[in-house]
Amino acid sequence: MTSRERFLAACRCERVDRVPAWVMRQAGRYLPEYRALKAKYDFLTLVRTPELAAEVTLQPALRFAKLDAAILFSDILTIPEALGQGYSFRESGGIAMDFTLDSEEKLAALGSAADVPARLDYMAQAMRLVRAELGEERALLGFAGSPWTLAVYMVEGGSAKQFYKIKCLAAEHPALFDALMEKLADAVAASLRMQIEAGADAVQIFDSWASLCSAGEYEKLSLRWIRKIISALPGNVPVIVFAKGMSHFALQIAGAGARVLGVDWTHKLSGIRELAGTRLALQGNLDPTVLNLSDEKIVRERTREILDDMRGENGFIFNLGHGILPEAKPESVAVMLDEICSEAR
Amino acid sequence: MTSRERFLAACRCERVDRVPAWVMRQAGRYLPEYRALKAKYDFLTLVRTPELAAEVTLQPALRFAKLDAAILFSDILTIPEALGQGYSFRESGGIAMDFTLDSEEKLAALGSAADVPARLDYMAQAMRLVRAELGEERALLGFAGSPWTLAVYMVEGGSAKQFYKIKCLAAEHPALFDALMEKLADAVAASLRMQIEAGADAVQIFDSWASLCSAGEYEKLSLRWIRKIISALPGNVPVIVFAKGMSHFALQIAGAGARVLGVDWTHKLSGIRELAGTRLALQGNLDPTVLNLSDEKIVRERTREILDDMRGENGFIFNLGHGILPEAKPESVAVMLDEICSEAR
Repeated sequence: MTSRERFLAACRCERVDRVPAWVMRQAGRYLPEYRALKAKYDFLTLVRTPELAAEVTLQPALRFAKLDAAILFSDILTIPEALGQGYSFRESGGIAMDFTLDSEEKLAALGSAADVPARLDYMAQAMRLVRAELGEERALLGFAGSPWTLAVYMVEGGSAKQFYKIKCLAAEHPALFDALMEKLADAVAASLRMQIEAGADAVQIFDSWASLCSAGEYEKLSLRWIRKIISALPGNVPVIVFAKGMSHFALQIAGAGARVLGVDWTHKLSGIRELAGTRLALQGNLDPTVLNLSDEKIVRERTREILDDMRGENGFIFNLGHGILPEAKPESVAVMLDEICSEAR
Repeated sequence: MTSRERFLAACRCERVDRVPAWVMRQAGRYLPEYRALKAKYDFLTLVRTPELAAEVTLQPALRFAKLDAAILFSDILTIPEALGQGYSFRESGGIAMDFTLDSEEKLAALGSAADVPARLDYMAQAMRLVRAELGEERALLGFAGSPWTLAVYMVEGGSAKQFYKIKCLAAEHPALFDALMEKLADAVAASLRMQIEAGADAVQIFDSWASLCSAGEYEKLSLRWIRKIISALPGNVPVIVFAKGMSHFALQIAGAGARVLGVDWTHKLSGIRELAGTRLALQGNLDPTVLNLSDEKIVRERTREILDDMRGENGFIFNLGHGILPEAKPESVAVMLDEICSEAR
């Protein structure tokens, strides 16, 4: 099997020759080759310049032959930016949106979702460059933030310790909330369709702030908009949903059309499999901190624990439980991949 | 039933006349009377002065007659401080420990757990003052941070976006980690015993950073130390464990000796009840953001949803899913309590 075949078979819960693997945020600061580029260009320049975004995307694929998939180097906040709400990074860390989206007027002033693909054409260009370089042997992933996770930043106005403004807005101004989410769902769907047309084999929706939702509101605040997006995508392209802190909603997430659930590290994958069955492929869920360690034995053991937990199960893609940390050791990523590939299925 | 009887009966999963209620961080910045004291004294002075800590503890009890329990106003970091690792608050927000606990030498330099009660005598004094003022009609709670949650701050050196140092230390220096946790478990047990002797009817252990642990490590990193603490407490005093992001470990947490599980807002309480049965009382889990709203109708509805979810169930204490926010409206707290008390069982 090629990496691409292996990855797509796992998404469909079909038999594979070994567990496919990729790493969330695999192109990033832990790689010296990324830091070298970052010394010359700022983050947003890397994101917005197709040749640079393609180069960054390919860095981990070139370094780690055993990675089964590449994921486009980009940022979830390209969508608010394409709609007219730009952003920057605070000196102290964290995100600052150019303004706080807190009124009907500001919502009305945003651009149209239909214009998003044109504004994000740099992503499509980068995707085509990557596809051309990567060939057909490896899988290529597109991605976007969920409408909820994007709205959290847009309404709060940036990073915050407690994001409560979005929840107050949803409770007090439900029509405004729904109109914002409708626009974001359309924009995300348009971006993902564009990425698929440009060569993505699968797409991941990051609902990174899923756990801000109370259980009774997760459907209304987030999941229904993810469902709307998935229904607007071609049915043959697997959608991975990463719902941090909400993996116990596996059945509902499958019901929204996800083929694969990205699971964070707080659950055993076998527990989620028991909950959702083989209707849903699972992706995860090594604690990223493990890759900060240099001790090969520990990295192998912790990787092995997850492989063992899912032994004999179809529909399993190895990944981390969240994005790799800037302090991760590239050598430990190699060890993890080696351990995964050591096991035939 | 008095409030105290009602609260303790609910902890034992016995029948009550109505659902008992209290609020995490109920003495705090959302109260004008707290802000008035805070204008005169800094936070640590309030914590360390028995008369002031008692006054702050009693503020919500005086304002809200329907609160069934008071919880001592204090701070989880009094324990590291009592062991010799002091702390302060950063200008930019967040906690700064006086140093980073990252070596055997620094661990050896910490004080003895046996000396913790003497150093935290101000907590015992405050507890006795509160008990005398509060009388026997309402329940009084003590609390402490879990060893894991305390160690997260001690090893990281303060608040951080990603707390990974503690996880690296636990993996690479397991003996050092275990020695630190042993000391913290002994110190927490000593503090809770002291609080119980000074008048606490029940105690809550805050495992606020539980979800930093991967599923496979939760027992080793956190739960076993909570078990050790509970086994060192008098068996007739209920222990509430609040394990944020880890409520799906309900059965294991019950196995560690907890009588009550504090549940965050990401789970339906009925789902956790299904998982753990009536062996474990449940406490929670209104989204604190709801109390930032001024719309009485919404506050009642959201409170009602949780009451309805647990209708007819014994062993249920109403609370928030996490601490009340500084922006909460005292009037909305009153509305929530009124809605809870409107329902006879």
